[in-house]
Amino acid sequence: MDVKWVFMFEEIGEVVKLAGSEWDNVKGLLGGKGANLAEMTRIGIPVPPGMTITTEACIEYQKLGGHFPAGMWEQVEAALAKVEAQAGKTFGDREKPLLVSCRSGAKFSMPGMMDTILNIGLNDDTAEGMVKLTGDSRFVYDAYRRLIQMFGGVVMGIPDERFEDLIESVKKKTGFESEADFKAEHWMDITEQFKHIFGRYSHHHFPQDPVIQLKMATEAVFKSWNSKRAIDYRNAAGISHELGTAVNIVAMVFGNMGKTSATGVAMTRNGSTGEKQIEGDYLNNAQGEDVVAGIRMTKDLSEMKTEMPETYQEFEAVALKLEKHYREMQDVEFTVENGKLWMLQTRDGKRTAQAAVRIAVEMANEGLISKEEAIMRVTPSQVDFFLHPQFDPDSIKEAEAGDSFLATGLNVSPGAAVGMIAFDADLAESWGKLNGKPVIMVRPETKPDDVHGMLAAQGIVTSRGGRTSHAALVARQFGKPAVVGVSELKIDMNKRRMTIKDTVIKEGESISIDGTTGKLFKGELKTREPDIKDPWLIELLGWADEHRKLGVWTNADYPDDAKRAIEYGAEGIGLCRTEHMFLKEERLPFVQKMIMADLPVIRTEAINALLPFQRADFEGLFRVMDGKPVVIRLIDPPLHEFLPDHVDLLKELADLKIRVQHASNLKDIDELLQEIKVKERVLKRVEMIRESNPMLGLRGVRLGNHIPELTQMQVRAVIEAACTVAREDIDVKPEIMIPLTSHVNELIRQRKLLEDEARVVMMEQDIEINYKFGTMIEIPRAALTADQIAKHADFFSFGTNDLTQTTFGISRDDAEAVFLVEYMEEGILPENPFEIIDRDGVGELMRIAVEKARKVSPDLKFGICGEHGGEPKSIALCHELGLDYVSCSPYRVPVARLAAARSALLEKK
Amino acid sequence: MDVKWVFMFEEIGEVVKLAGSEWDNVKGLLGGKGANLAEMTRIGIPVPPGMTITTEACIEYQKLGGHFPAGMWEQVEAALAKVEAQAGKTFGDREKPLLVSCRSGAKFSMPGMMDTILNIGLNDDTAEGMVKLTGDSRFVYDAYRRLIQMFGGVVMGIPDERFEDLIESVKKKTGFESEADFKAEHWMDITEQFKHIFGRYSHHHFPQDPVIQLKMATEAVFKSWNSKRAIDYRNAAGISHELGTAVNIVAMVFGNMGKTSATGVAMTRNGSTGEKQIEGDYLNNAQGEDVVAGIRMTKDLSEMKTEMPETYQEFEAVALKLEKHYREMQDVEFTVENGKLWMLQTRDGKRTAQAAVRIAVEMANEGLISKEEAIMRVTPSQVDFFLHPQFDPDSIKEAEAGDSFLATGLNVSPGAAVGMIAFDADLAESWGKLNGKPVIMVRPETKPDDVHGMLAAQGIVTSRGGRTSHAALVARQFGKPAVVGVSELKIDMNKRRMTIKDTVIKEGESISIDGTTGKLFKGELKTREPDIKDPWLIELLGWADEHRKLGVWTNADYPDDAKRAIEYGAEGIGLCRTEHMFLKEERLPFVQKMIMADLPVIRTEAINALLPFQRADFEGLFRVMDGKPVVIRLIDPPLHEFLPDHVDLLKELADLKIRVQHASNLKDIDELLQEIKVKERVLKRVEMIRESNPMLGLRGVRLGNHIPELTQMQVRAVIEAACTVAREDIDVKPEIMIPLTSHVNELIRQRKLLEDEARVVMMEQDIEINYKFGTMIEIPRAALTADQIAKHADFFSFGTNDLTQTTFGISRDDAEAVFLVEYMEEGILPENPFEIIDRDGVGELMRIAVEKARKVSPDLKFGICGEHGGEPKSIALCHELGLDYVSCSPYRVPVARLAAARSALLEKK
Repeated sequence: MDVKWVFMFEEIGEVVKLAGSEWDNVKGLLGGKGANLAEMTRIGIPVPPGMTITTEACIEYQKLGGHFPAGMWEQVEAALAKVEAQAGKTFGDREKPLLVSCRSGAKFSMPGMMDTILNIGLNDDTAEGMVKLTGDSRFVYDAYRRLIQMFGGVVMGIPDERFEDLIESVKKKTGFESEADFKAEHWMDITEQFKHIFGRYSHHHFPQDPVIQLKMATEAVFKSWNSKRAIDYRNAAGISHELGTAVNIVAMVFGNMGKTSATGVAMTRNGSTGEKQIEGDYLNNAQGEDVVAGIRMTKDLSEMKTEMPETYQEFEAVALKLEKHYREMQDVEFTVENGKLWMLQTRDGKRTAQAAVRIAVEMANEGLISKEEAIMRVTPSQVDFFLHPQFDPDSIKEAEAGDSFLATGLNVSPGAAVGMIAFDADLAESWGKLNGKPVIMVRPETKPDDVHGMLAAQGIVTSRGGRTSHAALVARQFGKPAVVGVSELKIDMNKRRMTIKDTVIKEGESISIDGTTGKLFKGELKTREPDIKDPWLIELLGWADEHRKLGVWTNADYPDDAKRAIEYGAEGIGLCRTEHMFLKEERLPFVQKMIMADLPVIRTEAINALLPFQRADFEGLFRVMDGKPVVIRLIDPPLHEFLPDHVDLLKELADLKIRVQHASNLKDIDELLQEIKVKERVLKRVEMIRESNPMLGLRGVRLGNHIPELTQMQVRAVIEAACTVAREDIDVKPEIMIPLTSHVNELIRQRKLLEDEARVVMMEQDIEINYKFGTMIEIPRAALTADQIAKHADFFSFGTNDLTQTTFGISRDDAEAVFLVEYMEEGILPENPFEIIDRDGVGELMRIAVEKARKVSPDLKFGICGEHGGEPKSIALCHELGLDYVSCSPYRVPVARLAAARSALLEKK
Repeated sequence: MDVKWVFMFEEIGEVVKLAGSEWDNVKGLLGGKGANLAEMTRIGIPVPPGMTITTEACIEYQKLGGHFPAGMWEQVEAALAKVEAQAGKTFGDREKPLLVSCRSGAKFSMPGMMDTILNIGLNDDTAEGMVKLTGDSRFVYDAYRRLIQMFGGVVMGIPDERFEDLIESVKKKTGFESEADFKAEHWMDITEQFKHIFGRYSHHHFPQDPVIQLKMATEAVFKSWNSKRAIDYRNAAGISHELGTAVNIVAMVFGNMGKTSATGVAMTRNGSTGEKQIEGDYLNNAQGEDVVAGIRMTKDLSEMKTEMPETYQEFEAVALKLEKHYREMQDVEFTVENGKLWMLQTRDGKRTAQAAVRIAVEMANEGLISKEEAIMRVTPSQVDFFLHPQFDPDSIKEAEAGDSFLATGLNVSPGAAVGMIAFDADLAESWGKLNGKPVIMVRPETKPDDVHGMLAAQGIVTSRGGRTSHAALVARQFGKPAVVGVSELKIDMNKRRMTIKDTVIKEGESISIDGTTGKLFKGELKTREPDIKDPWLIELLGWADEHRKLGVWTNADYPDDAKRAIEYGAEGIGLCRTEHMFLKEERLPFVQKMIMADLPVIRTEAINALLPFQRADFEGLFRVMDGKPVVIRLIDPPLHEFLPDHVDLLKELADLKIRVQHASNLKDIDELLQEIKVKERVLKRVEMIRESNPMLGLRGVRLGNHIPELTQMQVRAVIEAACTVAREDIDVKPEIMIPLTSHVNELIRQRKLLEDEARVVMMEQDIEINYKFGTMIEIPRAALTADQIAKHADFFSFGTNDLTQTTFGISRDDAEAVFLVEYMEEGILPENPFEIIDRDGVGELMRIAVEKARKVSPDLKFGICGEHGGEPKSIALCHELGLDYVSCSPYRVPVARLAAARSALLEKK
C-alpha cells in the first residue's frame, strides 16, 4: 500500500506529516470540509466518526479516465470498518445498520456546485432493521425515499421533478397541505414508487447493496468536479481546475429521532451587526435540511437555552471553543441525536461590511487576533460600503415584511437608488437629464448605444447578463448602483411595462434598487447618506494609520470638500483644480473676455479681474487646511472649454438666421441681427482656437508659457492669499503644481516666471511664505526624462488619468463607453485602466520615473492625484513604487487609508 | 622660461611634442591657419618665415584681464629675430626693413569675424628705406596708408568710412575713376592725411615704433576673440568660447613689385562641378586683397601657364603636393615676389553638393582616400540637394549676367521656387489655395498667424530674421524653399510693393527664389526636376550600401512610387497605407456606405464591394516589388475621416434650410427637402461617430477588432493578390502590419482572426504564400510591453509620428504651427521632434522596446516607418538601436542610404 488515499478524521497527524503543517496544505489534501472535520476531531469536538478520501484520489481518478486509483477502495473499506467500530453500528447490517453521508469538499468553497448524498446504507432490509431499532417507520422511510431521490439525481442524473411530482400528487390525493403531515404509510408508499421511477428513468434497479451505493456515490462526487457548472464556476471564480475535490464519508446522525433530538445552524457572532453573541436557528426533531429549506418555522437559538439547557451549554462551549481555535467568527451546523450533540460542519462565517469591521476590531481588542490581522481582515471594498448611499434599514425591513420586495439579481455595482422606470435610453436621458427626474433604467440588457441613458439614470437593472456584462461594467465604471441578471424580470416593450412574478409595474412608476445586495423593491424606499461615524471603523482606520507608509491626501477644490476630507482623515490636499473656480457664474464672463480679447491690454485687464476671486478661493482652503499642505494645480484645460460649444453655436446661428427670415417687425429683426453679430464673433474665436485633439493641444504648462500673465495671476493669488492667512497665525503650506510638463525646459521657463512673481508678492507683502514648486507627471515623456525634470521640481504628482490616456493612446471621453467596454467584455483588456492602474504600461512608466528621479534627487516627494489614488489595487502599486502619498476624492479617503495599511502589512510578510 | 607661447613655423615638431600628434590638437594650439603654415613649412612648401602665438596665450591674456602672459613678448621678440635672419631683413630697419602681417587664426574657421593687419613695420623712416630698396614709392605709400587704415580700424576702432571718404574726395578732386589710377604723390598725400585722421579720431599719434605697432596689433587680435560679433558667431555656430585665437606674425611678401610679381587664389579641383583641374584667378603686379576685392579684372589661372611658365609649373606641383598631403581638395593663396613663389595659406576648399560627391568619389578612385572616407566626406544634406527641384544652371547664369539677380539672403530651406509675390498670408492663401496659382509669400517676418499663407505658398522670403526664425522653422518643417533675412529688401505695405536696391517689384509680379543658395531673382527662372542620375552619386551610394547595416525601405502606396523608390535603391516597402486607396473617387461611396450602414448585411456588402479594388492595388505593388518585402498596414484612421466634415455639414444644412424658405416652386422645395433629408442622415452618423480626440480614438487595431469584416476583407485582398501574382512566377513577400497596438491582447485577437482568413484564402487558391504578421509600435504602452507583444509578432515597425504625439502628449495637427514653433523660437525645444526623433523621450521608448523584445524574440525584425526614417540624425539613432531597416519616402531613400552608411562607419571608429 504505497499511497494513502483515505484518512480517518482522527488521522490528521498523518496528513500533516504528508502534506506539511500549513493549514492551506491540509485543506488542499482533505478539502475545506474534511480538514475542518478532522481538525474538530483533533481538538476534541464531538464529530461523528468518518473518513476523507483525498483530493489526490480525485485527481488520480480523472487521470485514470474514471477509475479509482489502485488500493483506494480497499482503504475506504478498511476505514469503514473503523467507522463501524466507533459508531457501534455495521454498514448493511440488518440489526444495527450504519448509515453514512457522502459529501464533496474541495479546497475552496464552491457552494451548491458539487454533490451530496445522505442516508447511504439504507435498503429494504436495513430499513426494516432501522424501524425495529428506532420504532419510527415514518422517519426511516422518509430517510429511505430521500436516499433514492438523491442517489437518483446525483448518480443517475434523474431530474428531481420526477420525484417531486409524485410527492405533489400524493399531497393532492391525501389533501395534506405539507409533507410534514405525511404518515409512515405515505412515505413507505412513496419509497416504493420512487424505486419504480428510479428504474424507469435509469434502466437500473435501485442498488440494494450498501457498498455498491457508497462506491457509486463516491464516483459521482469525483465526477461532479468536472461537471459543466463546476467548471464554469471555477472559471468565473478563478479557481484552478487541478485541485480536485475530496469525498467525506461520515456516519449519519439524526436530529429527527424525537423530542431529545434537534438540528440547527449558528454563527458565533451576529453576521449583520458583528455583535458578539451566538445567533442561530434550530428545530426539534428535524433533519438538517429542514432548517435550511424553510418548510417548518425555525426557532431562535436562544429558546434552546430553556428547552435543552445542558445541551445548549455544551453547544455554546463548543462554538466558543471553535471561534477561539480558528480565531475567526464561525458558522456551524450541529445535530442533537437523543440528547447527544454532534458538530457536522464549521467554517468562517459570512458577514456584512459593518459586521466585518466590528468583528475584526473587537477580536483584536479581545486579544484573539492582532491589530495587523484585524486590518487584513477588512477589505477596502467593505470600507467603501460605508461611503455609498444605503437604504434605511427600517425601510428595508418594512418593505420585506410587506409585499414590495420584488426579486434579487446580481449585485454588480453597490449603492441604493430610487427612481422612475424608463425602458429605453432616450427616455431615460430625456427624463433624467432634461427634466431632472430620478430614473432607473430597466433593460433586458444594455449595449453601447444605451450609455447616454445609463449616465442620466440613478441606477440600472437588467434581466439578462452577468457580472462582466456591459451593464455591469458601465455601471461600476460610472458609480451607478446596478442589479443585473434578474431572471424573474420580464419586460414587455410594447405595453411599456414589466412583470416580476405576479407584480406588474408600468414605465414611469417608481422602484428602489439595492446594488449592494442585488434586491429590487417596488415604490420608493427611504435612503440615508453615507456615514462613517461607525466607532469600530474609526478605530480600525486609526490602527491602519499606524501601519501605512503612504500618506493619504485628498482632491478638493472648495473649503467644504476639504473639511469633509479632513474629517475622513486626509492629511493634505493633493490636487486643487483652479480651473473649476473659473467656471463659476460670476467669473466665467471674465474668463471669456480674456479669451476673446483682441488686444493684450484687454486680456490683461480680464485676467486681473479674476485675481480677487482666485485669492478668496485660496484663502478659504488655506484656513481649513491649517498646517497641512495644499497642492494647487495651475490652469490645465484648453481655453475652448470656457467658450460655448462649437456645434451648439453653429446650430444656434442657423436657428437665428431662420428666425430673422420670419421676423415681422423691425425691432425684432434688429435684435436678432445684433444677437447674430455677437454669436458670430464668438464663433470666429471658437474656430480660431479649435483643436482637432484638444487633449493633446494647447493646455497645461503650454498654456502657461503661451499666456504667462494667466499663470502669473494665479501664483499671485496663491501667494497673496497665503500672506493674508499667514497673518492670521495659520500655518500655510502652498505647493504650486505645473501640469502637463513633457520637456524639462517647459518647466524651467514657467517656474522661473512664476517664482519671480512669487518673490515680488512676498516683497510687497513683506512676509516670507514657505512654498514649493512641482509638476505633474502625466505625459510619458515626463516619466521617461524624470531625471532631467527632477532637478527643477520640489515634488512630482502622477496624473494617472492623462498618463493612462497618453500611454495607451486612448481618449477616455471617446473610448470608455465604446470600445473600452467592448474590450473588457471580450477579455481583451482584463480591467479598465482608467479604474485600476495598468501595471505593465502606466505602472512601468511610474517605476521608471521614480527610479530616475530618485537617482538625482533622493528627497523628491512623489504623489498621485489621478482617480486611481483611491483605488486599492492602484494604491498597492503606489506603495510598491515607494510613493509618498496618494490623493483621492474625500469619499475615498477612508478606503485609501485601509488599502495603504494593507499594502504595508502585505509587504512586511 | 616655463611656458612656450610662441612657435616658429618650422618648430611644428615641438608643437607635436607638446600637444600630441593629432592634427586636431595641433590646430587647437596654433589655430587652423597657423597649423597649416607650419605644416607647409614642414613639408618643404615655400612659406614666408613667420611665427604663431598660441591660442593658449590668448586664453591666458583673457584670464589676466588683458595682459600678455609672462615671457610671451620676449618669445615674440626672439622669434622675430629668427624671422629677420631668415628673411634677410630687419624689423624697423631703415635700409632693409622687414614688414610683417599680424593675423588671427582660431581652431575653427570664423570667416570675417576676427582681425588682420598687414604691412606692420612701416613708418616714415622705413617707408623711405623701402622706396630706396624697391624704387617704387607708389607701392610703398599705398602700403603705408593701408597700414594706417587697418591699424586705425582694428586697433583704434576708427570707422573705415573716415578713411574711405578721403579717398573718394581725392578721386573727385583728381578726376580719376579708380584708385588704380592714383600716382605715388596721391598715396603719399593720402598717407599724411590718414595720420591726421588717425590722430583726430583716436587722440593718439600713429605709432612710429614698429615694435609698438606689432604689440598693439597682437593685443587687438587677442581682444577680437571676445568682440560681440565673434561671440554671436560662436553662439550661432556652436563653437566653444574657451578655445581662443592664435596670432600669426608672418614676413610680408609682395606680389605688386613689378611684372615678375603676382598674386592669386586657386582650388585644386573645380568647386562647382568637382572636376579634377586646378582652377583659380591671379593678377600680375598686385596685392592679395586686389584679387578678392574685384577692383581689377582678374585673369584665369590658365593664362599664367604662358605668362610665367616656370612659376606656374612650380605652383602646380605645390598645389598638387598639398592636395596629396592633405588628402583633400585645397583652396590656396599664393604670391609671386620677383619670380619667387610663396604660399600664404592653404585650407580645405568649399564646394557645391555635386562637387563634394564627385571629388569624394574620384579621390577614392585615385587611391587618395578610402571609400569609407569618401562616404564620410559627403553629408546627407548634400545628397538631399540632388533631390530638390533646382533652377536650371543656364537659367541662373543668364539671370546673373542680366539684371534680374536681386539679392542674397540666408538659405534656410533648400529648393527652387517661382511664383507671384503676395505680401500677406490671406492673399497668399487666396491666390495659392483657392485659385491654384504659384505664390511666393514675402513678409518682413512671419508669425503663427501667417502659417496658412505659408502653407499655400511655393516659397517664402523675409527681410528680417535668422536661421531659427519662425519663417525658417516653418519653411523647413513643411519643405518650402525659403530665403530669410534679406536685409536689402524693403516692403511698402501701403503701396503693396517691395524695393531691393533700385528695383521696385509690385505685388502679383513674379520672383524666383533659391533656398539652397539664398539668392533672389526677378521674373521666372526655369527649374528642373530632381535627378539622381549623377554617376558619381550612384557610385558613392553603391559604396554606402556595402557599409550600412540598416536596410533602406520605402513608404509607397502606389506602384509608380514603388518603382521610383526601387530606382533610388529601396529594398522593400516598409509602409503601404491601405486607407489612401479608400479615398479614391470610385471607392469612397462604398466606404461611406459601409460606415452609414444600419444593418450588418449592408455593411458586409459594402465591404465586399471594396475587395476587388484593394486586390488590384496589391497586385500592382507585388509585381513591382518582385522578391522584395511589402509591408501593408491595415486601415488606420478613424472612420469619420471618410465622411464629410461635421462643421461643413452643419453649415451646408443651415444654408439649405434658408434656401427652402426662399424657394418659390414646389419642385425646388421638394428637391431641397430631399437633399436636407440625405444630409441630415449623414449628419446623424457623423455625430454618432464623432470623437473629441480622434487621434486617440477608434482607429487602427481597435477598428479592426470593432469591425472585423473590414480588416478580414483587407487580408483577403492581400492574400488573393499574392496568390494571383505568385502564379505569374513573381516572388511575393507580403507582410501584414497591424497598427496602433497598445495591449498584446488586441494583437492576439486581431492576428488570430486575420490568420484564419489568410489560411482560408490560401486553401481556396491552393497556393501557399509566405506571409508575415507584425505590428506597429506607435503607442508608449506597446514599447513598454514589447516583450509581451514580441511573442505574437514577426516584425515591429516604429511609427514614430504617432509615438512622438503620444510620448509628448502633443497633437501634431494642432501644435506644430502654433506652440511648437513658439517653443522652438524660444529655445524650449531644441528641435522639432516631428522632424528629428526626440532621443531622450521617444528614443528611450524605442530603446526599451528593442531591448525587451530582443530578450524574448532575438530574431524579430525592427523597422521604422515614420517620417523620421529619412532624417539623418534619426537614422543614426535607428542604427545605434540596432534596427533592421528604415523606411522613408522615395525621395529620401538616397539620403537614408548614405546616412545609414555613415552611422555604421562612425560606429566602427
